[in-house]
Amino acid sequence: MAIDIGIILVELFFLVVLARVAGLICEAVKVPAVIGEILMGMAISNIIIGGSSIFSFLQLSSESNFPIFQVLADLGVIFLLFTVGLVTPFSELRKIGKTATLVATLGVILPFLAGISIIIAFNGSLLEGLFMGAAMTATSVGITARVVKDLGVTDSIEAKVIIAAAVIDDVLGLIVLAMVTGVGKGGSLEILDVAVVAGLAVGFVLAVMYISTLIPKARKLVESRNRAKSRKNLLPTHFSPLPFALMICFGLSALASFLSLAAIVGAFLGGMLFAEFRDIWPCEDQFAPINEFLVPFFFLLVGINVSVSTIFVPETMVLVIVISVAAILTKYIGCGYAARKIGKGSAMIVGFGMMPRGEVGIIIASIALGTGIFPGSLYATVVAMSLITTLAAPSLVAYAYKRKDRLYGRGLRLFKG
Amino acid sequence: MAIDIGIILVELFFLVVLARVAGLICEAVKVPAVIGEILMGMAISNIIIGGSSIFSFLQLSSESNFPIFQVLADLGVIFLLFTVGLVTPFSELRKIGKTATLVATLGVILPFLAGISIIIAFNGSLLEGLFMGAAMTATSVGITARVVKDLGVTDSIEAKVIIAAAVIDDVLGLIVLAMVTGVGKGGSLEILDVAVVAGLAVGFVLAVMYISTLIPKARKLVESRNRAKSRKNLLPTHFSPLPFALMICFGLSALASFLSLAAIVGAFLGGMLFAEFRDIWPCEDQFAPINEFLVPFFFLLVGINVSVSTIFVPETMVLVIVISVAAILTKYIGCGYAARKIGKGSAMIVGFGMMPRGEVGIIIASIALGTGIFPGSLYATVVAMSLITTLAAPSLVAYAYKRKDRLYGRGLRLFKG
Repeated sequence: MAIDIGIILVELFFLVVLARVAGLICEAVKVPAVIGEILMGMAISNIIIGGSSIFSFLQLSSESNFPIFQVLADLGVIFLLFTVGLVTPFSELRKIGKTATLVATLGVILPFLAGISIIIAFNGSLLEGLFMGAAMTATSVGITARVVKDLGVTDSIEAKVIIAAAVIDDVLGLIVLAMVTGVGKGGSLEILDVAVVAGLAVGFVLAVMYISTLIPKARKLVESRNRAKSRKNLLPTHFSPLPFALMICFGLSALASFLSLAAIVGAFLGGMLFAEFRDIWPCEDQFAPINEFLVPFFFLLVGINVSVSTIFVPETMVLVIVISVAAILTKYIGCGYAARKIGKGSAMIVGFGMMPRGEVGIIIASIALGTGIFPGSLYATVVAMSLITTLAAPSLVAYAYKRKDRLYGRGLRLFKG
Repeated sequence: MAIDIGIILVELFFLVVLARVAGLICEAVKVPAVIGEILMGMAISNIIIGGSSIFSFLQLSSESNFPIFQVLADLGVIFLLFTVGLVTPFSELRKIGKTATLVATLGVILPFLAGISIIIAFNGSLLEGLFMGAAMTATSVGITARVVKDLGVTDSIEAKVIIAAAVIDDVLGLIVLAMVTGVGKGGSLEILDVAVVAGLAVGFVLAVMYISTLIPKARKLVESRNRAKSRKNLLPTHFSPLPFALMICFGLSALASFLSLAAIVGAFLGGMLFAEFRDIWPCEDQFAPINEFLVPFFFLLVGINVSVSTIFVPETMVLVIVISVAAILTKYIGCGYAARKIGKGSAMIVGFGMMPRGEVGIIIASIALGTGIFPGSLYATVVAMSLITTLAAPSLVAYAYKRKDRLYGRGLRLFKG
């Protein structure tokens, strides 16, 4: 494969411009930029001008360059999940109250069961059902955090429960993903195989979490020993943590991949592990620009992979509606019920706040598409469901806060950009 | 080309670990980390264990994955040059005194002529001579700045002249590169063709610089008009400048490539252009982690491309010695002579300080190797020359500062890490 860096640079230029234009339009109408990137990707591959799409103008479909963008996109999503893990130290997860755990658990079980049931009711296979269920479980921490921040209610009790539950949701969702990926790669649904894969997945997740819990203890031991001998701290604080973070990220992603799990599961766990060193080696600020460069490629490719013509088949459109309604109701009922103890008005906020699926659902669908488990129509269904739940959440959460405000008279700043 | 992200992650993990280990060893013995990365690259491809190199263990040589690392390395060097341009606003370049300009000019002309003469004396072609000359011109701003900083003399008159001259050197070196690249791509040495290519190169560089000079004027105009109408500033300061910087970087790199110039010339000019917005849209801090991630791949590949066996041929070894001595002497004599007005002791410091070729010489040699103009032996010669000048400079500069200190009794902190 001969590389012409000149052509790749032209393609990079156009993709960065298109992604940013879409993002700016979305930000102007107060919609998350990620929505614009996905829609732009769909436009690139689906809008036909003069017999060919913009996509073929960009030559991305030529055999030589597409894999390069695929790798940039994969690195983007791996870094994204590492960064999500980075703000999720396991030691803090344990401090979170029972309410958040209950909200997260019900918010995973109901959508997962709904996904399996609906796919089987639509004559799909159990494997397709498992992936649809997995894609419906995870709440997007990023989008939820953004919505809460835009409403100016980050320090409210509801917001804290939502964020904490969304984080636990991600962990549970990734465990579900780890299990269904293993099953998908084996291509088998024998009970024994499922058990082995599930065991491997849960074992890997628990092993990394266990190591995470050892780190604070090990650090305390090192520090107290140093103090006793009045030596300098053994852990240096003046070096750049980024290469070390990259090693953990690539190492655990590769290991997860080697264990037939999704690479992003390893990346997330790697981030969680590295979060235990956050006080001396913070590197969120260093990952932010790397993500800003690479992540849009992932969401552009998410859109590029959607064949719009597959959605406009009556059967798929019905499925999109059923799945979206189920995705909204299961989170609303499950999470709202679980949060009923903190008040009726608050439970409604939590129910709506847990709704956006955003990137994690789409990542799961991408894996299912990449491994041949999902046909194009199911992939398009998940993307449509993610777009719908993400677009609906901000206004519903704002409505719920307003309603509670009217009921209980609490002052609230709404829609402060 | 099928992408297995799992294998790529394993390779990324090993490359990041190897690059960082090499960098840490170098930093421990006060040598720039870049030296370690190049030597590690040479080790990866040249050390044979059990019949095959570590390189083949990493499967980087397999047809499927090497282009991916090539692109990551190319993006690394493009971002590196963009960042160098970013700290080089054209408006500041013009403020620099005549001494720095004279130092830079002589420091380009003498090594360039020496390179051509030596290659022709060694029975090489004129084209090879042009590239060798170009590779010998550019002073590494990065390494020079690092040496000066490590000596704790950043605010001395000599250091200011060296840094300013190194920056001008980069511009001159890139113009030389732009010309020889155009000639090299045309594969022709007809006087008319050379004139067209040189005209195109100089025209492109001058056009971008001219646009740079217009920016401050245009901004003033916009600002004064806004003030008159008491409107808000039209240039927003709250958005993230990174995507905009990426557009300029990719756009001008692609344009340079399209004009048969080296992509890095466009990247450097793009950085210079964007530097005019540095006060409202600073983005050096955002490029730092991106570079920290990608740039080591470039220097690893620099080393990987060196076939050590080609150096240990008597003729090549003689050439390495002759070229290295010429590289040291031409900069020492040319730059020292040009700086004689600021004192004899200071001239020696400037002469030694302008010596390290570092990355720019190697980048030029990589282009010559990639386009088939350089055989492996000439490429290896340039890499060896760059390593030698870069390794020699820190001690020679320190010696020259000490000598001046002894002669003139000025207090000086030496080798403060």
